[in-house]
Amino acid sequence: MIRAEGNRISHLAHGTLRIPADMPMAARLSALYTGLAGVVAESGAGTAAAEEVFVNKNPQSTLKLGQARGAVLAALAGSGLEVAEYATRLVKKALVGTGAAEKDQVRAMVERLMPGIKIKSADSADALAVAICHAHHLASARALGGYRG
Amino acid sequence: MIRAEGNRISHLAHGTLRIPADMPMAARLSALYTGLAGVVAESGAGTAAAEEVFVNKNPQSTLKLGQARGAVLAALAGSGLEVAEYATRLVKKALVGTGAAEKDQVRAMVERLMPGIKIKSADSADALAVAICHAHHLASARALGGYRG
Repeated sequence: MIRAEGNRISHLAHGTLRIPADMPMAARLSALYTGLAGVVAESGAGTAAAEEVFVNKNPQSTLKLGQARGAVLAALAGSGLEVAEYATRLVKKALVGTGAAEKDQVRAMVERLMPGIKIKSADSADALAVAICHAHHLASARALGGYRG
Repeated sequence: MIRAEGNRISHLAHGTLRIPADMPMAARLSALYTGLAGVVAESGAGTAAAEEVFVNKNPQSTLKLGQARGAVLAALAGSGLEVAEYATRLVKKALVGTGAAEKDQVRAMVERLMPGIKIKSADSADALAVAICHAHHLASARALGGYRG
């Protein structure tokens, strides 16, 4: 979660929803839905973004990833948020200037843009990068709207 | 939806949730979640079952199927239901006696078990077959529990 005002962004929070692996799958998906809806309600978030996924893994992994994604996207939209999706290359390009940037470069840029942040994991760095990409995208769209208007 | 009392089953309803294809994906998944949760709340269902999916299609289809499945399973569990999953072969075996049964045979057996039913689509026949398989499974488990106890 980040705050974006014009071109200025700041870090609010980031974290991971941990669902016990020994729960039945449907219950896990429900916990994911409920957990994320709770975070959205608490934070008062105004918009959301997700990374487009790249599926070249084995079909069972793709199915599981899809199921988790389905619960997450439904929870976000069910909480009244629009959900933007960005390809990984686009996120990298927005932050580092090239779609071929390494993960470490993206993380370093996230840290530079939000000084003092302590990023908990590689996934968190990726998620924050998607949020920043979304903020840039919205700021550009607004600026463009103003120019046209 | 079926009613099961001991070994007796009867048809209550069946149908398809139709979500406008031009809605954004997250909103469609949310509509699926909300629609199914509404059906469960209205019907007072006590348990649910889903067909295990067989994924050998292209990765993008598998991902989309997984997303829809994730929203559906989360809605069922979020409505307080346990969700059993059955492999297609098991469903066919439960109804027709062989896991290699043709779709037409399964549909004919669904119609024989619930006389007077007008099945709206091939998917509906499959869904009702899963429900019947689940009812049989629960009845057997109960009988076995009684025997052991």
